[in-house]
Amino acid sequence: MALRALGIADRVVGVDRDAEVLARAVALGAIDEGSLEFASIAAADCIVFATPAGILPEVMERAASFVRPDAAVTDTGSVKQRIVQAGERLFGARFVGGHPMAGSEASGVDAARADLFEGAPWVLTTAQTSGSAGAFAAARIGSLVVAVGARPVYLTPGVHDHLAGLVSHLPHVLSFAFARTVAADPGGAIAMDLAGGSYRDLMRVSHSSPELWSQILIENRDLLLPIIASFETSLHSLHSALEATDTGALRSLLTGTEKGSLN
Amino acid sequence: MALRALGIADRVVGVDRDAEVLARAVALGAIDEGSLEFASIAAADCIVFATPAGILPEVMERAASFVRPDAAVTDTGSVKQRIVQAGERLFGARFVGGHPMAGSEASGVDAARADLFEGAPWVLTTAQTSGSAGAFAAARIGSLVVAVGARPVYLTPGVHDHLAGLVSHLPHVLSFAFARTVAADPGGAIAMDLAGGSYRDLMRVSHSSPELWSQILIENRDLLLPIIASFETSLHSLHSALEATDTGALRSLLTGTEKGSLN
Repeated sequence: MALRALGIADRVVGVDRDAEVLARAVALGAIDEGSLEFASIAAADCIVFATPAGILPEVMERAASFVRPDAAVTDTGSVKQRIVQAGERLFGARFVGGHPMAGSEASGVDAARADLFEGAPWVLTTAQTSGSAGAFAAARIGSLVVAVGARPVYLTPGVHDHLAGLVSHLPHVLSFAFARTVAADPGGAIAMDLAGGSYRDLMRVSHSSPELWSQILIENRDLLLPIIASFETSLHSLHSALEATDTGALRSLLTGTEKGSLN
Repeated sequence: MALRALGIADRVVGVDRDAEVLARAVALGAIDEGSLEFASIAAADCIVFATPAGILPEVMERAASFVRPDAAVTDTGSVKQRIVQAGERLFGARFVGGHPMAGSEASGVDAARADLFEGAPWVLTTAQTSGSAGAFAAARIGSLVVAVGARPVYLTPGVHDHLAGLVSHLPHVLSFAFARTVAADPGGAIAMDLAGGSYRDLMRVSHSSPELWSQILIENRDLLLPIIASFETSLHSLHSALEATDTGALRSLLTGTEKGSLN
């Protein structure tokens, strides 16, 4: 939608398994043409794979034979290590992994907005290989990201997955766990009556798709588990200080949490 | 500020221990007159105690002898049981506990806004005693709350403290623990580069005053501890399902978190 609204692409072709979604995407102005067949990407000089993270390697595998040998290829998966491995295996240096850190708890084509990426960080994975084909693809995908208003952030797939675990996956886990806590509480049904900003902020992303998010969490399992454990330790310290009615310890646990501070 | 902006009160007198804060409040239009002496409230027909929750009973005690015998009295403390006990002991049925569920991570007079309470829930505690003095005070404080644009929610002090623990204190605890987790992480210093909505939402209230919040958490300790424990159980279930790479269990833990649902 952003590519068409901004006149960046001559033609945008959308491939999906659902004809109704494609019709809706055409109606919303997100694509010029919809197709149920991978063969329809054969003319594309730039390809963006944007399925849920868990099935991305399989989808790229099935589409690979239709991809033009000089096309630049990227994806939008939330977890990068396995996807970048698959992408580089299939497309060599012409593959650049991507992850736009935008969006909301909504999903599906009806949540599309041409201005969704404005000002948002968009991670691009740094190439494992180089050479002119890779440099061309990296430049091409980089300018696409800049053109839709996003800010490219270059990271290795492993660093991306760790940081995404910290700043996105952990907050989602906490929001889901908070929603369960409220649902299980005898006062949960009337909690909304008192909801202020802190409640709404924390609850928002728990409305994200369970299907999509269970895939993302599983996909990033190995890096995410120690991050969740680290949070549990932080929470337990607060819990213990409160249990001990230790105001000094509690106050110091609420202080010194400035970005990058280690105290 | 809202009372003056909306022309609700003939005269607003602010009492504080800090002359600079009072001068600033006059300059900002929040009060007509500032005073360092409790004696200055002697003419008031409506009194709002608005110190941090931990010292409210002591402040009310010290001010009590200056309160007009027919004045309606309320407070804005975030935890109600002990404050309402003190208020009813000092002022009888003319005391109605209050808690505006508005505001932000900012504090102090410079964070004041005349429209802060518009549409916000404002808890008023239901009287333990009744009679005409109590009915008059309850009606008076209720109309003050409505006049500044808030929505009164009537609860017993105990139910308030439980619900506030769930919808406000727990989210603050989680935000503080999240900020500590990020600060302790080797990638914490560059986490902001990737920050999307879920990070900003969760991090926001961790910038709240540690002084104020350590008092609130300690004040509501007995009701808050089991709520934190309940959250820890929810989080641990997610942690375990992820550790076991049990996609089905994980997906079902991310589902069925609708408000009031117990599954």
